[in-house]
Amino acid sequence: MLRETLQGFDRVRALRWEDGALRLLDQRALPQQTLWLAMNTSAEVARAIQALIVRGAPAIGIAAAYGLVLAARECAALPAGQQASAFVAAAEALRAARPTAVNLMWAVDRMRARLADQPDAERALIEARAIEAEDLAANYAMAALGAALIEPGSGVITHCNTGSLATAGLGTALGVIRAGFASRRVARVFAGETRPWLQGARLTAWELLEDGIPAQLIADGAGAYVMSLGLAQWVIVGADRICANGDTANKIGTLSLACAARQFGVRVMVVAPTTTLDFATADGGAIHVEERDARELTDYAGQRVAAPGVVGFNPVFDVTPARLIDAIVTERGVVLAPDADKLRAAFFDQYN
Amino acid sequence: MLRETLQGFDRVRALRWEDGALRLLDQRALPQQTLWLAMNTSAEVARAIQALIVRGAPAIGIAAAYGLVLAARECAALPAGQQASAFVAAAEALRAARPTAVNLMWAVDRMRARLADQPDAERALIEARAIEAEDLAANYAMAALGAALIEPGSGVITHCNTGSLATAGLGTALGVIRAGFASRRVARVFAGETRPWLQGARLTAWELLEDGIPAQLIADGAGAYVMSLGLAQWVIVGADRICANGDTANKIGTLSLACAARQFGVRVMVVAPTTTLDFATADGGAIHVEERDARELTDYAGQRVAAPGVVGFNPVFDVTPARLIDAIVTERGVVLAPDADKLRAAFFDQYN
Repeated sequence: MLRETLQGFDRVRALRWEDGALRLLDQRALPQQTLWLAMNTSAEVARAIQALIVRGAPAIGIAAAYGLVLAARECAALPAGQQASAFVAAAEALRAARPTAVNLMWAVDRMRARLADQPDAERALIEARAIEAEDLAANYAMAALGAALIEPGSGVITHCNTGSLATAGLGTALGVIRAGFASRRVARVFAGETRPWLQGARLTAWELLEDGIPAQLIADGAGAYVMSLGLAQWVIVGADRICANGDTANKIGTLSLACAARQFGVRVMVVAPTTTLDFATADGGAIHVEERDARELTDYAGQRVAAPGVVGFNPVFDVTPARLIDAIVTERGVVLAPDADKLRAAFFDQYN
Repeated sequence: MLRETLQGFDRVRALRWEDGALRLLDQRALPQQTLWLAMNTSAEVARAIQALIVRGAPAIGIAAAYGLVLAARECAALPAGQQASAFVAAAEALRAARPTAVNLMWAVDRMRARLADQPDAERALIEARAIEAEDLAANYAMAALGAALIEPGSGVITHCNTGSLATAGLGTALGVIRAGFASRRVARVFAGETRPWLQGARLTAWELLEDGIPAQLIADGAGAYVMSLGLAQWVIVGADRICANGDTANKIGTLSLACAARQFGVRVMVVAPTTTLDFATADGGAIHVEERDARELTDYAGQRVAAPGVVGFNPVFDVTPARLIDAIVTERGVVLAPDADKLRAAFFDQYN
């Protein structure tokens, strides 16, 4: 039912397995260019994840799973005694490609466990396809659950890209927004441009345009002002990792929005599949937040913006404490005012 | 005494009167190019203010004052019966060049009052020079008062450019930071890049480099995260208009920082000359917030970023309620936890 309702709002895809290769839509080139790149080795996939050709926590998990299909094929050509260790090495390289998103680690670990580290490309492909299909199904489930929390006619602010480009399709936070728009619960969408990589300006705004959902691009610093004007009732974001107590790592700028939301009575919804839950990490203090090259801040598209010599501090995620989050939406259900007890009761058994 | 201490930290100037023309350092071209443009008519000055060749609330007030020197010279060449009305028209055009900063209105009104709308270029020049000199003196006074509030070894976050480029020299918030750095009260400076116009990346980082003050450039969305890490104890910003009750209009993004500061026990200091106080505006709800062309958002450094068709919402200021401000620093003194009564008691008689 929901799938049919949302069909017109779910046209974009970030990756596809075709002719024995993983094809990635180059997200560095969007929206100016629609460029599909073929990845033929697991090392190419790891480099593509590192270089942000594919990004978004669920999407990089799926890409890594297909990367292990390629790894299995490569390893099968090696002498029998070297296959398992080469496969494990390829898995470790994929797992380490980016440090913050837990979905990446989860997908690699699931592939390794299912294959018992034996490079069987056929079984690997079945498992990677399952991971992709489950993510898509999770997104449709979350879209319905999250949209139901929103009062008709609401304005929402989102940040970064959590759409079809960041997942197997539809998206997490953007899936909720799509479903909310389809059911007239969401009347206005504001998308933060998401410096330094401009995922909001380049990807979210593009996805929403493709699907005919009107959205207004704002500077990241403008979110609080939009809230103060009464134009938004919800901040809806994805997550790269949700700790056992609900503390949530997400794109840099999320914490700013959550702080402002508390000042203006706006609610904060985190939308992520249960694969983003990390019960092994007690709270946000233990999360490794990735810092990237400061040139992402001082330069733009190869052009120097800041004066030569300027030093940048470029953490690409931040950690929003659970006390600033009103709802965590997963494919298995919603937890309001999340804390360790509620999250454990709701999701621990199914997850583990 | 303070002037000597800070001499090495006050090298940059945004404007100068020379050979009968107002020369403006083109702030659109910084830091890649240091380009001085000569303004020979008041209309050129109004256009330069509109185009952000000169920006920063105090600096545009000073530029408008010199613009009226040019207007006086132009009008003196007209038949006697037309001089006063032409002068008033030029003053109105300058006053309307940007709507949010009250210093612009204040400077134009002061010039008109002093000249009784008679286009006497010599008297106009004396008055414009006085406005400039008073602003510089105010900045040195604020620098000392503001720095005294900061504990030694503190980290500070600033936003936009409030330095020598935004004023007659030294700066407002950046003046406090300069004095704080000189006295070792400020140990770390974080400068938000300040989208969409990147005043932080292009101007503040450049000024601080010129003066040998180490600073780290951050994405606007990263301010809250910096605070959550305990790296900043103060947010120090300027103002375009301070209402009777202390509500403060400043560059978009200021409100986000102030909301985050409340969450993390960080204090917020607004630094502005008393010319920025607007007792005629009761509170922030009555401020006209300038919206600029959305291309400032959909493009980056002259290059298209967002997909064609993307709509932007580009308010360039926001309004921080007084309850989120810990200190307002003017050249006449400091008001802690500002409200209408305290501001009136401290500044109303001197101002009026």
